[in-house]
Amino acid sequence: MYENMISIDRDASESFQMQIRRQIAIAIVNRQFALHRPLPSIRQLAAELGVSVTTVALAYDALKQDGFVEARTRSGFYVNQDVLADPALALQAGVAGGIAALPDRIDYKEFFSGRTFNLRHVAKPADCLIRFRYPFVCGLIDPSLFPIASWRECVRDSVNVVEVGNWATDYSAVDDSMLIEQLIQRVLSKRGIVAHPDEVLVTVGGQQALYLAIKLLLSPGETLGVEDPGYPDVINMARIEGIDVKRLAIDRDGLILSGEARRCRCLFVTPSHQFPTTVTMPLDRKLELLKLSKDMGQFIIEDDYEADISFNLAQPRALKSLDDWGNVTYIGSLSKSLLPGLRIGYLVADREFIREARALRHHIIRHPPVNNQRSVALFLQRGYYDRFVAKITGTYRRRCEVIHESLEDHFPGCSVKPEYGGGSIWLRLPEGADARVLSDLVQADGVFFETGGFTFSDERNNRNHIRLGYSVIRRSLIPEGIGKISRALHCADFG
Amino acid sequence: MYENMISIDRDASESFQMQIRRQIAIAIVNRQFALHRPLPSIRQLAAELGVSVTTVALAYDALKQDGFVEARTRSGFYVNQDVLADPALALQAGVAGGIAALPDRIDYKEFFSGRTFNLRHVAKPADCLIRFRYPFVCGLIDPSLFPIASWRECVRDSVNVVEVGNWATDYSAVDDSMLIEQLIQRVLSKRGIVAHPDEVLVTVGGQQALYLAIKLLLSPGETLGVEDPGYPDVINMARIEGIDVKRLAIDRDGLILSGEARRCRCLFVTPSHQFPTTVTMPLDRKLELLKLSKDMGQFIIEDDYEADISFNLAQPRALKSLDDWGNVTYIGSLSKSLLPGLRIGYLVADREFIREARALRHHIIRHPPVNNQRSVALFLQRGYYDRFVAKITGTYRRRCEVIHESLEDHFPGCSVKPEYGGGSIWLRLPEGADARVLSDLVQADGVFFETGGFTFSDERNNRNHIRLGYSVIRRSLIPEGIGKISRALHCADFG
Repeated sequence: MYENMISIDRDASESFQMQIRRQIAIAIVNRQFALHRPLPSIRQLAAELGVSVTTVALAYDALKQDGFVEARTRSGFYVNQDVLADPALALQAGVAGGIAALPDRIDYKEFFSGRTFNLRHVAKPADCLIRFRYPFVCGLIDPSLFPIASWRECVRDSVNVVEVGNWATDYSAVDDSMLIEQLIQRVLSKRGIVAHPDEVLVTVGGQQALYLAIKLLLSPGETLGVEDPGYPDVINMARIEGIDVKRLAIDRDGLILSGEARRCRCLFVTPSHQFPTTVTMPLDRKLELLKLSKDMGQFIIEDDYEADISFNLAQPRALKSLDDWGNVTYIGSLSKSLLPGLRIGYLVADREFIREARALRHHIIRHPPVNNQRSVALFLQRGYYDRFVAKITGTYRRRCEVIHESLEDHFPGCSVKPEYGGGSIWLRLPEGADARVLSDLVQADGVFFETGGFTFSDERNNRNHIRLGYSVIRRSLIPEGIGKISRALHCADFG
Repeated sequence: MYENMISIDRDASESFQMQIRRQIAIAIVNRQFALHRPLPSIRQLAAELGVSVTTVALAYDALKQDGFVEARTRSGFYVNQDVLADPALALQAGVAGGIAALPDRIDYKEFFSGRTFNLRHVAKPADCLIRFRYPFVCGLIDPSLFPIASWRECVRDSVNVVEVGNWATDYSAVDDSMLIEQLIQRVLSKRGIVAHPDEVLVTVGGQQALYLAIKLLLSPGETLGVEDPGYPDVINMARIEGIDVKRLAIDRDGLILSGEARRCRCLFVTPSHQFPTTVTMPLDRKLELLKLSKDMGQFIIEDDYEADISFNLAQPRALKSLDDWGNVTYIGSLSKSLLPGLRIGYLVADREFIREARALRHHIIRHPPVNNQRSVALFLQRGYYDRFVAKITGTYRRRCEVIHESLEDHFPGCSVKPEYGGGSIWLRLPEGADARVLSDLVQADGVFFETGGFTFSDERNNRNHIRLGYSVIRRSLIPEGIGKISRALHCADFG
């Protein structure tokens, strides 16, 4: 009857008793026994296995000791369900009882296999600028444009200023007041946002702002709506936190305000220029989104990435600037317009929200480094930031013209010129083309770009999208680079 | 029959139909109707309320539209249980139907009331050094000891070095290699730890290292064992992540290896000098802890805070240095021995663990600021760090002598002289004394110290503990400060 589960190897060095113990323990953990029925009786098992009653009795005794089974009067042994509830307990019991062996080293690979944090995300090769003559990479700052002298001046002066006050302050409770003031005056005001210092929190990049917002607004099992195609990192974060993700279709005006969108607890949107397509949500849809989300009692997270790099004198207003009800949490970053490596981001929301975000931030990292807060504050205050942003915006605009012209030559009608600004353009290749194959082909020829397929929920049918950044590539090299992509496409075999 | 739930106000501006709709919806959400029985029929309700059948029919129609009720053929209307399962849905339905009003602004205070992240933690007054003549504060660096010129040199040079390589590298995938090398050679080696660069991860302070370790090693519902008294922040983190905490007794040798301790999935320990009592775990208990934890398949998180500030030439070895099995995750920080505001911490563990920690770090913050990684690397490489640590260690040792003598004068036998080192001493006042009352009394007299009660699970019966830091107080002022505490204690009324 139990022959499939328990058998005796008469040649093994292991004692009969230990063999029985081990096999019953494993069968219990594997849920091979019914929970509401007694386990095989001592007498029955002894007879079936051809061993003495004492051997089986001792095995059961040890199993009881280890917590695998419990004895019920006049009814026999039953599975101890506590062990099933907690696999670690089972392992511990097994190890303590000597029936499970541990490896010499913990196998963390195996430990994490069920819940890995190694999720796919946008990654740039470390040596991008060195390795590629045509780096259509996104999100980097062109070293040749950066005002290194001004930056060094601010860094130097921040070490001065620091001497007096900064040593003693606990920066969990307050951020650098000059930085907050400068962000409000020079950065947020351009987006139409009027914020009080208590409504702004400095974070370790936009990434941390996003993580805090998600953790604050959503509980495990609730649903976050994310544009499709959209930002893969936000989907990863939600997955890590046990939050459900609903992918939501977009059109040329950004997020479509569908019934599905309205049923999400919270929406993650990139209205200024959608990630990755760069389309801009018009004012009337923004207003409708705000109205509907209020009607539904929904939260909105607005990621206004690259906001300062706007090609238009009259910037379209941020969603947050239109938010009367207070359900919009705004995320910004200086990574795309100052230095990515500094990791200075910020979060704008209701002051009660910021209070909680600060508390959560304390428990995760305490606070962003104070010296960088001050250096950046000085860089802003002295007008270097405005000047630098004006410079890169002009350069990007010209590069964007050239890249769009080149794309029109080679791939007519396949790309949309970014209306808002920013540092990248989205290209749809012919159906059937696989950007991964194309990327491998052109990398050998000195060209780098980001593949776009994995920003879609239906990756398989969208492998023909690529994202071309123009924040570091020299303008004069753009036509050559695009030409190489075009030629590679014609030679490529996507079979 | 339904008079208590539904009534008509004939003078109200609201239509009869809307009054019925709103009241039925509210009664449904409040679960005032049985789920398995039909709601009052149209005819019955119309008769009871004295309104037309059409009015009630229209109200039910709207309630059906909003999702509050469902119609069953030949049986009438029933509560739609989907609405009860999801209060947000009910609110949305109510708002969409115009029967529930939303406030003008979201009330985040109310939203967070059920799950606030504002948990109690060690907090220092921002103006500690300015406000108090006797700042027995912990964890700060004495500005008068810090080699500001050397630090500025490193900051300046890091802005040079950065020019070439650092612009283009994605620091999510790798940390500053010079910093990793220096940490291994100059910091970890002193603790007896031999680490490969792949086994070290740079974090935003020890706090982030701890957060990553907890999130990586424990799933919600599993148990983290924490010393009692112990570090409050780790308990807060566990609570935020839905992890259970088991408080574990300590004695003069640190954590007691009880049966309770052995049943935890993971243990958080401070073996070098226990937080907050400063007792050091002897080698034999460390070895026993490692053996038992291996037997139980347990993880250990070792927080080696202030590790570099050791008063002994022969430092007791870190637990991690004795870890053959690989179950110890080691957390360190330069916050206590360099600059707290820089937020440079690190995590040492198996390389597969570090791979996952890096991935998780990416999703939370991407990476710690690169410029600070390089500045600190240079500060270490040029020997400034070793020199500074030697200097503060000597100063702290002398201050520690004085503070302990003063305590022996005023509170004989109530404090244990820190054996390992560090920057604070633990004092047990007579039973019945309340450190919070005492703190208020002496603050008016220029004395600041940390109260210790909230590091205990049984806070109420341990309010007579205080933590006296000596990292910034001038040695000559110590006896005076302790004298003030002693005198205040004798005058205080703890009734």
